[in-house]
Amino acid sequence: MKNPWKQVWAIALVVASMVAGYHAIAADTTPQKPLVIQAQGSFTVGGSVNTAPGTFDPKKPMESAGQTYHGDHLYAFYQIPVHPRKYPIVMWHGAGQFSKTWETTADGREGFQNIFLRRGFSTYLIDQPRRGNAGRSMVETIVKPTPDEQMWFNQFRVGVWPEYFKGVQFDRSAKTLNQFFRSMTPNTGPFDMNVVSDGVSALFDKTGPGILFTHSQGGGPGWLTAIKNRNVKAIVAFEPGSSFIFPEGEVPAPIPSSFDTVRAEAISKDRFMALTRIPIVIYYGDNIPDKPTDMPAQDSWRARLEMARKWRDAVNRHGGDVTVVHLPEIGIKGNTHFPFADLNNVQIADLVSRFLSEKKLD
Amino acid sequence: MKNPWKQVWAIALVVASMVAGYHAIAADTTPQKPLVIQAQGSFTVGGSVNTAPGTFDPKKPMESAGQTYHGDHLYAFYQIPVHPRKYPIVMWHGAGQFSKTWETTADGREGFQNIFLRRGFSTYLIDQPRRGNAGRSMVETIVKPTPDEQMWFNQFRVGVWPEYFKGVQFDRSAKTLNQFFRSMTPNTGPFDMNVVSDGVSALFDKTGPGILFTHSQGGGPGWLTAIKNRNVKAIVAFEPGSSFIFPEGEVPAPIPSSFDTVRAEAISKDRFMALTRIPIVIYYGDNIPDKPTDMPAQDSWRARLEMARKWRDAVNRHGGDVTVVHLPEIGIKGNTHFPFADLNNVQIADLVSRFLSEKKLD
Repeated sequence: MKNPWKQVWAIALVVASMVAGYHAIAADTTPQKPLVIQAQGSFTVGGSVNTAPGTFDPKKPMESAGQTYHGDHLYAFYQIPVHPRKYPIVMWHGAGQFSKTWETTADGREGFQNIFLRRGFSTYLIDQPRRGNAGRSMVETIVKPTPDEQMWFNQFRVGVWPEYFKGVQFDRSAKTLNQFFRSMTPNTGPFDMNVVSDGVSALFDKTGPGILFTHSQGGGPGWLTAIKNRNVKAIVAFEPGSSFIFPEGEVPAPIPSSFDTVRAEAISKDRFMALTRIPIVIYYGDNIPDKPTDMPAQDSWRARLEMARKWRDAVNRHGGDVTVVHLPEIGIKGNTHFPFADLNNVQIADLVSRFLSEKKLD
Repeated sequence: MKNPWKQVWAIALVVASMVAGYHAIAADTTPQKPLVIQAQGSFTVGGSVNTAPGTFDPKKPMESAGQTYHGDHLYAFYQIPVHPRKYPIVMWHGAGQFSKTWETTADGREGFQNIFLRRGFSTYLIDQPRRGNAGRSMVETIVKPTPDEQMWFNQFRVGVWPEYFKGVQFDRSAKTLNQFFRSMTPNTGPFDMNVVSDGVSALFDKTGPGILFTHSQGGGPGWLTAIKNRNVKAIVAFEPGSSFIFPEGEVPAPIPSSFDTVRAEAISKDRFMALTRIPIVIYYGDNIPDKPTDMPAQDSWRARLEMARKWRDAVNRHGGDVTVVHLPEIGIKGNTHFPFADLNNVQIADLVSRFLSEKKLD
């Protein structure tokens, strides 16, 4: 049954966005069109429950006897634009990070949350189990305030502290660096590939078919999630870290670097084959050397990129569709470990949009 | 200078919302008008920095020497509707909670984030320092998975576990209870009144004049924030906990309860007087007994409500404008410790809107 109001609504929206467009030109203070959001909200999904032995006594509330503890769930904040595209995008952060990865950039521009909302996608920004707003962990942990930010500055390839890389796509103000360092939040339980991929798989049960964006540490459990859940229809992985999984018997030799040794993991060929059924694109940024170096931060990424290429070859050998894009090779220079938040992040979003369009995912 | 597009834009919006309204009636699946958001994003504000002694060596990245650690900041996610009202609303969670307090309710309805956006207010939802997405704490902490949820069920006055209060404004499905328990996240550092109120005060420096909504544990540091920052133009406090501050020499006697003893704190009269310069409204829900009882959860709120009334009298005695609304006294029954998320939260929002309108804050 056709709903006549749908057409009226569509026309009104077109008019409204035209007016909004003119408004933006007329008033410099409103450079962007408003976001028109049909629904937004948050929920938790997945996780486990423990119950302490005994019987709860309401007169002794501080005793655990008979009480429950829910933890290891995932937290998601979602936004659905009017007339969303077919597939929502689930955006998954990396190590030490949380949903903010995809929100406002450290220098105050729009991140992939807003950019892909503007392009008509529903977005689900997550905090993985034991991180950020999904902090209730089933396993006890000590949270230590360890000074480590110069390590991250280097590891995230902004530069070699205190120098910025020449031409780096990163604003050099003190204010930006302050926001960048404060965009981290600790694990509230040990990082566990299975716990976090179970959480994201539970999310895909709820969203239905969708696209998974991963960053860094999210990359490895991202592959696992696609194996666990057929609702993952594609993966866009930004700078996946060290967790690459190969079929038993095809695991390549570890790749040493001056930071650590990148080791591949084995899984059954049956499970591996799930990864050959979806399009996957992997992006790496700039300032990753071709040859071994004694600078740990740079060298760790040389080893990871090398392993990513071996993994691409393994998946494609079995009929898969994995592309590794090393951005400088296609003429895009200066990207850090966070291409989706770098100064050229709209250009990066355009690359992703082209991929989604080519794979008929939009 | 008048901007002619403003008028066109306003008319287009009115048309769009009328159409949206009809659309909502025509199609049951879209019960709400879209949210039209001019800008949204996130940032951190406030906090401190430690630097480890020594010199950072990029070849020894895992050594702390010379490295920094930024922590104790606040995290905020903001949304600004088109043509927002004069004052934004800062929404501050309580103990064990985070921004989700104001987002989707446990049973899946819209919380105060969406409700007040729809009423034209800009919203800033925060995670206070050492909680949720603002997890990077300056002080080491152990996060323990202690079973405690039956305590919270009672303390949050949903009922006396496993019974729900008769007529409670809380959905009784297992799904809702699961979401309710998972809406908690631990402290990643010791709770510190000064650290958290410094964070919120830094936020008000950034937002400019605004309205502060607090819940429970946020109530006490909320008063401190208004003392620290004149940009706090009003406070709407839901069920503030035990931290009430009185002028030196006017501190009332502690109020014992079968849960704990509610003690008032002294501050200088000078600082106290800041609280007499803004309108403040305090709401408490249902199932708070008039007389002492041996049920700790209920009795703790009897003592808190009693202290809140003494505090109201103290502030008003010095020329202030504090109202305590015990909801059952005005005929609104069944509210838990989370009136803004209860089944009747639109009715509660209407009360708040009326307060803001009376005080000319909208």
